[in-house]
Amino acid sequence: MDRQDFELLSQTRLFRGLPQDMLQRLVGNEAPRKYQKGHLLFQQGDQADHFYVILSGWVKLFRLMPTGEEAIVHIFAAGETFAEAAMFAGHKYPVTAEIVADARLLSINSNHFEKQIAESPKIALAMLATTAERLKQLVTEVEQVKGRNSLERVAFFLLSMCSKEPGPTVLELPYEKSLIASRLNIKPESFSRVLNKLRHYGITSKKNQIIIPDVEQLRQLAMDNDST
Amino acid sequence: MDRQDFELLSQTRLFRGLPQDMLQRLVGNEAPRKYQKGHLLFQQGDQADHFYVILSGWVKLFRLMPTGEEAIVHIFAAGETFAEAAMFAGHKYPVTAEIVADARLLSINSNHFEKQIAESPKIALAMLATTAERLKQLVTEVEQVKGRNSLERVAFFLLSMCSKEPGPTVLELPYEKSLIASRLNIKPESFSRVLNKLRHYGITSKKNQIIIPDVEQLRQLAMDNDST
Repeated sequence: MDRQDFELLSQTRLFRGLPQDMLQRLVGNEAPRKYQKGHLLFQQGDQADHFYVILSGWVKLFRLMPTGEEAIVHIFAAGETFAEAAMFAGHKYPVTAEIVADARLLSINSNHFEKQIAESPKIALAMLATTAERLKQLVTEVEQVKGRNSLERVAFFLLSMCSKEPGPTVLELPYEKSLIASRLNIKPESFSRVLNKLRHYGITSKKNQIIIPDVEQLRQLAMDNDST
Repeated sequence: MDRQDFELLSQTRLFRGLPQDMLQRLVGNEAPRKYQKGHLLFQQGDQADHFYVILSGWVKLFRLMPTGEEAIVHIFAAGETFAEAAMFAGHKYPVTAEIVADARLLSINSNHFEKQIAESPKIALAMLATTAERLKQLVTEVEQVKGRNSLERVAFFLLSMCSKEPGPTVLELPYEKSLIASRLNIKPESFSRVLNKLRHYGITSKKNQIIIPDVEQLRQLAMDNDST
């Protein structure tokens, strides 16, 4: 593996921020391999004993439908990793992976990976640190992007705190509403205005309680602006 | 810790999907503690030796500015965890944590956590599996939500594959453009139309190469619809 490969590897979402010596241990003596277009890396139902880093090229993950058709799950490109969730969990691959443009891949074996973590739990902690951090950033990003105007932002936020069951719910907010406004990146006065508007939808607030008569209705309110 | 606490714990982003026995080992004999509004859990610069799960109440994380003002970083509510990234990484807390509405918290100690992982690396793998999986879902969600129309979606996607440096770049796509369209959840003919439109911005495609004269300009194109 040359320096450029190593650079790309250390920039993947999974390994970003991992100290170089830990990354070196995780990779071990594994060398990148070339694959031609059309090659099947693994098939749906195979034991998930490797995960992959794409150094160049493209990989398609798909499921075979009962009709024989392919349902594409995702297309991955250079700098991305795939199949790690299945491998970490020790499951079978839930999809088939096919090379769709000539590729160079690095594979990491589950036994090797587990052995490194047992010897040096700090590797797992470092990986958890980066993924946990990134996860929070993305959750915030999604929260903020999904709710574009104040009403939708508040609705989406309230929704995220409701249980999944439909029907009525009561949420307890901190006494200072300015804190919620801050979390949602809106002005405190906008937050009060939104709470007033929510009354039209039957959602009332009483001190620090928000009384929601129907979670399902709130969901529709939050999703109104969501085109996906 | 009662059954309801344990239920909430197993629903947090960090622990979701973790088998019950592993979760039990991670928590150990730790019991939830009550904290009153105004209590400081930890202060900016303290060694990060715990992370926390909120069972009820609210917690504010903030940084003290040189002016003495508080810059709020985030407000966390029941069912959320915080400070795990700092603890996993073994850093100092980069923020101060204050209880803003009477709270019950479960804290997990870094030494205990590390010991459990060393004894049973499968715990770390299971946590990595859930965070890796969730991370991918969120990245896809952000990709799709950020680019609302086809042009922005393609621009955002191309941007995500560019290096961070400004200036010209050449990207290699798979031969079949239908695969990219599938990844972006748009119709193949929309993808071709978008490629044609991109010519107005000097971005040209030649077989499976996309030639981008200026990454910065592409960034502006992708971010046009981004109100965050």
